[in-house]
Amino acid sequence: MNDNYAKLWLDYKPRNIHQEYKRLTYFCIEGFDRSDIIICNAIKELSFGLRKMLGISLKEIDENDSTPEAYILIRKTNKISEKKSADKLSSNKEILDREEFEISIRGNNLCIEALGSVGILYGVFDFLRTIACDRNIPDTYSKGRKIRPTNPLRMLDHWDNMDGNIERGYSGKSFFYENNEIIINERTYDYARLIASVGINAVVINNVNVKAAASYMITDRYFDKLNKLGEIFAGYGIGLFISLNYASTIEIGGLDSADPLDENVRAWWKEKMAEVFRRIPSLKGFLVKADSEGRPGPFTYGRTQADGANMLADIVKEYGAIIIWRCFVYNCRQDWRDTKTDRARAGYDNFMPMDGDYHDNVILQIKNGPMDFQIREPVSPLLGGLRKTNQMLEVQIAQEYTGQQIDVCYLIPMFKEILGFKTYCGKENDTVADIISGETFGSRFSGIAAVTNTGNDFNWTGNYLAGANLFGFGRLAFENNLDAETIAEEFIRMTISDDDRVVNTIKEILLPSRAIYEKYTCPLGIGWMVTPATHYGCSVDGYEYDRWGTYHRADHLGLGVDRSDKGTGYALQYNEPNSSVYNSKKKCPDELVLFFHHLSYDHVLHSGKTVIQHIYDSHFEGFDEAKEMAAKWETLKGDVSNEIYTNVSERFKRQLLNAREWCDQVNSYFYRKSGIPDKYGRQIW
Amino acid sequence: MNDNYAKLWLDYKPRNIHQEYKRLTYFCIEGFDRSDIIICNAIKELSFGLRKMLGISLKEIDENDSTPEAYILIRKTNKISEKKSADKLSSNKEILDREEFEISIRGNNLCIEALGSVGILYGVFDFLRTIACDRNIPDTYSKGRKIRPTNPLRMLDHWDNMDGNIERGYSGKSFFYENNEIIINERTYDYARLIASVGINAVVINNVNVKAAASYMITDRYFDKLNKLGEIFAGYGIGLFISLNYASTIEIGGLDSADPLDENVRAWWKEKMAEVFRRIPSLKGFLVKADSEGRPGPFTYGRTQADGANMLADIVKEYGAIIIWRCFVYNCRQDWRDTKTDRARAGYDNFMPMDGDYHDNVILQIKNGPMDFQIREPVSPLLGGLRKTNQMLEVQIAQEYTGQQIDVCYLIPMFKEILGFKTYCGKENDTVADIISGETFGSRFSGIAAVTNTGNDFNWTGNYLAGANLFGFGRLAFENNLDAETIAEEFIRMTISDDDRVVNTIKEILLPSRAIYEKYTCPLGIGWMVTPATHYGCSVDGYEYDRWGTYHRADHLGLGVDRSDKGTGYALQYNEPNSSVYNSKKKCPDELVLFFHHLSYDHVLHSGKTVIQHIYDSHFEGFDEAKEMAAKWETLKGDVSNEIYTNVSERFKRQLLNAREWCDQVNSYFYRKSGIPDKYGRQIW
Repeated sequence: MNDNYAKLWLDYKPRNIHQEYKRLTYFCIEGFDRSDIIICNAIKELSFGLRKMLGISLKEIDENDSTPEAYILIRKTNKISEKKSADKLSSNKEILDREEFEISIRGNNLCIEALGSVGILYGVFDFLRTIACDRNIPDTYSKGRKIRPTNPLRMLDHWDNMDGNIERGYSGKSFFYENNEIIINERTYDYARLIASVGINAVVINNVNVKAAASYMITDRYFDKLNKLGEIFAGYGIGLFISLNYASTIEIGGLDSADPLDENVRAWWKEKMAEVFRRIPSLKGFLVKADSEGRPGPFTYGRTQADGANMLADIVKEYGAIIIWRCFVYNCRQDWRDTKTDRARAGYDNFMPMDGDYHDNVILQIKNGPMDFQIREPVSPLLGGLRKTNQMLEVQIAQEYTGQQIDVCYLIPMFKEILGFKTYCGKENDTVADIISGETFGSRFSGIAAVTNTGNDFNWTGNYLAGANLFGFGRLAFENNLDAETIAEEFIRMTISDDDRVVNTIKEILLPSRAIYEKYTCPLGIGWMVTPATHYGCSVDGYEYDRWGTYHRADHLGLGVDRSDKGTGYALQYNEPNSSVYNSKKKCPDELVLFFHHLSYDHVLHSGKTVIQHIYDSHFEGFDEAKEMAAKWETLKGDVSNEIYTNVSERFKRQLLNAREWCDQVNSYFYRKSGIPDKYGRQIW
Repeated sequence: MNDNYAKLWLDYKPRNIHQEYKRLTYFCIEGFDRSDIIICNAIKELSFGLRKMLGISLKEIDENDSTPEAYILIRKTNKISEKKSADKLSSNKEILDREEFEISIRGNNLCIEALGSVGILYGVFDFLRTIACDRNIPDTYSKGRKIRPTNPLRMLDHWDNMDGNIERGYSGKSFFYENNEIIINERTYDYARLIASVGINAVVINNVNVKAAASYMITDRYFDKLNKLGEIFAGYGIGLFISLNYASTIEIGGLDSADPLDENVRAWWKEKMAEVFRRIPSLKGFLVKADSEGRPGPFTYGRTQADGANMLADIVKEYGAIIIWRCFVYNCRQDWRDTKTDRARAGYDNFMPMDGDYHDNVILQIKNGPMDFQIREPVSPLLGGLRKTNQMLEVQIAQEYTGQQIDVCYLIPMFKEILGFKTYCGKENDTVADIISGETFGSRFSGIAAVTNTGNDFNWTGNYLAGANLFGFGRLAFENNLDAETIAEEFIRMTISDDDRVVNTIKEILLPSRAIYEKYTCPLGIGWMVTPATHYGCSVDGYEYDRWGTYHRADHLGLGVDRSDKGTGYALQYNEPNSSVYNSKKKCPDELVLFFHHLSYDHVLHSGKTVIQHIYDSHFEGFDEAKEMAAKWETLKGDVSNEIYTNVSERFKRQLLNAREWCDQVNSYFYRKSGIPDKYGRQIW
């Protein structure tokens, strides 16, 4: 083990409350090939964890030995027959069949069963987590605990550039790249262990904005290292994905077109993909950002997004690979004077008409909201709109707009809301969670991806508390019925301390942190009052007269964007009754009302407050509550490691400066504009 | 001559209207050492110009020849006795004595007389300019034209970094540096020729923010090249100056202090300066930015600015060198909530109390306004405040806040206003021009400096029309009684075309361009409604909630900064009656009224308009007038070189986009805030 970085939740500590399980000093394997690399890694993890926590030196039962008093049985289940093609991504069902595991107690023994070796790996991590979280083992397993992951694809998207910088990275530099070379070292393995332990099974290792050296990732220069990386990942059940430069035919292929219907273009890709999969057999597919924010794409050639995605998908299909196609396509050269064009509409307008046209190894990756990872957005209407298309939800744990890992913002409560959102695409099984699990429409592929928050900082995520989002995303993606509190508790106990006061105090910080961040930044769903370019700190008018389609339209009478049928009509992109609810000033929930409506400052909300008073109240409250969080953290001095205490404490100092600026600037801005005083006479500048 | 860059106003064209002067094919020199490098260069310029314009092959009269019919006599005047120390910067008077020249017609001959060789050089350029501008030679010279420069120091400050970038540079990269090395090539000589031809006699060759390699400029690494550069400059009467890192004792000296009263610090500087002047004898002094925008300075050690400046000045005195100390010292970490602190006050507050303390080879360099080179500011109250201190005016021809050499903005009318400003520091001779000429207070040293607008672009200044500011600054610094129109005409005739229609059309563009830029950007002196960091384009609130002390304080009732006696008291820093005028809402001139007062939108100006209607009118007018300028330029297609036409035309396209954004954003912002409609019902968004 290396001391250049923290081990986070794999830094197991001795646990004294499971004395009776110290008997489990033996294991045996049934049905799996002993040389299966995933099985080897599972055993390694099990041995490591049990030694650290229970002081056990785990031994394999020798055939010649007599059966020991108690052992751990690792067994290939025969309940489901495994298909030959199981090493390729051939469908949701096959993925989940391999990943499902069951843990049970049989007499003195513990049995971990699965169809695939990766199921065993997940079972091992489940068992270790149970111990690490001080959960009662018989309670957990005596009736048999069978877990089938909720989402077939559980992916992390790295926005790492090959020069070592990370776009929207707040945790140092990349641990994948340095000076345009791929780094493989001990940290690579520990990264795979960390994310596999929480159930991640796919990683995109480069920025969706594919430029410079990254355009050459699909050339001889990088093949060997990429395949090595893919093999390391495969050992932990993680599929390797690469972001593709859609214009590769031009940028590295020497062609003058990237038209998906051009025969030369298709021929180039066919040959290129044959080479790529021959040299990187561990590769599972590609992520593509096309026609977006300056990136080239099929629109350039008058083709549809489906034309582009299908062209690539058809070519990679023979290698069992998939094409994940981002739906982040909008006009980023909008005129602020134009109130008809609505960026929020763009995803639906661009992708819905081709529902059913996307081939079955294409997945559309859809951001949770129609804009871009604001602290509060409605759920994208593509989720519940598209019915005949493989879909993946994209969230962001890199805190681009949510505090940049300076401000604490535990995002799992937000993700729970998104997953629980009823789209009304059917009578039942109509939530976002149902759709991306693949159940609603029987999708061939589906899942969830997060833009990750990692970097080469000692603690991986800048702020130690931001680790809860990395941990939590994986856990939630694997078992979406887990609640935010349970996940927080697991993270704290495994990563920081299992002292109950510490655990409870940090939970009291994490659980309301998203609501607090929302309070001191974004009132009533309006969003975007953020410093342009950096995306940290307040700038109420920062985007108001810019080209990004992100406006609050505040004047001396009111604010908000009319997206009703009288405005841009965005509200009508939802299924009923969501559409009617959002379309109505009266019915629209408070937290989104300025996203959908332009309201006067004296409009009375469901809460009974006026819009302007809500702005004042929520900002004062948010700042006060941020101070309370910081004060709670200070009570932990001495009870958590000095490294963790200092790291978080320093960030809380910056968070309070930030929260104060947001509070004062937003309040001053709207007071100066509206002329309406705060009803409680608090200080507004 | 090299074709990698334009020759600008030295690109002499044949002139047919001076036929009778084609007789002047001989010259002779009296009283000057024939090996004097400046005399050599003067003869070279004279020969070159006369050959290009009149087709003359100039020859020196041989002693054995009979006296030719007509010749140019270059003569050392004996009217004033030259002191021995004339090669050192010992006083205004000595500088001006050397630089003064007289041109007269004596029978068939033309006589250029001066005490110093540099006076001859200036005389030669004056004569060539007269021909190039198609002026009548007898009218100009028959009564004798005697010119003594108005400002002893006429300086260009380069903000070139040694990595080749230029801070606030809009004309390409540096032509002084590349990859942290000093470049000396043909362009270096042509640069010296260009600026000497308009009378510049001092150049600071590196950014006032001295960082990175520039901190090592006073080390062996650069000495030889610097001295070579200094010698080239000296050949054209230009003194070499270097920006100094005030913290050199720490950054390169290995000391732990830069305290000006610390004996070790003084000893280090003493030894360092001995080395510097031994290795760079051509060096004339240093420019220092201390205690400013993050730069270290004497305040760090509880010392005064005078302590810092005097410490260095005392040490360099024996080398005849001077210390130019910038007065740009203010709190750049202000809290926007704080309405008492006023950045405008800072220069006066920081420097006035020590008037008389600065030693006589220190010059304080004072920006024209109290803020930072906005398109409209009042004149700094230090000018007319300080009475016992050497002073230099600092202006900026780099168009940082004035259009970045995209938007045309001929700054000479603004500089004329500044120079003509009556400070009331005395009964007469009280204008800024009087003060910086040294006359008002009999200063030992004084003058004017401009942050320059040059770079390695083909045409040196990005936009060809921005060349008028480089040319014009030099001309005005040399002869401050020239008017802006005359200077513009000289520039156009020498640089672009001497066709009368072209000349008049471009004058119609240049002369109102500053007023137009002011109209579509900054109403009534408020300033700072600019995009932070880049300083190009509109962002009304961009600096409003920031730390730079630059606010408009707009609310739904009005805007402006109260700097009267009821506000920050800044207006009281002026001498009477300026103080009373600025202090009064009623008396304050319209163009500065929001700089000094917070006014309601319905306040009626001297113009009879309300504040809000003035905002609307001036922005609509400014945008319309920008369109008119662009249209005028289009009429020149075919009548100016294609290179010049295209260059300026492309910039006008960008200027119109910029002007439209300023117009629409400012109007929309204030309409949305005030709710008061435009009385003419024009489109506001």
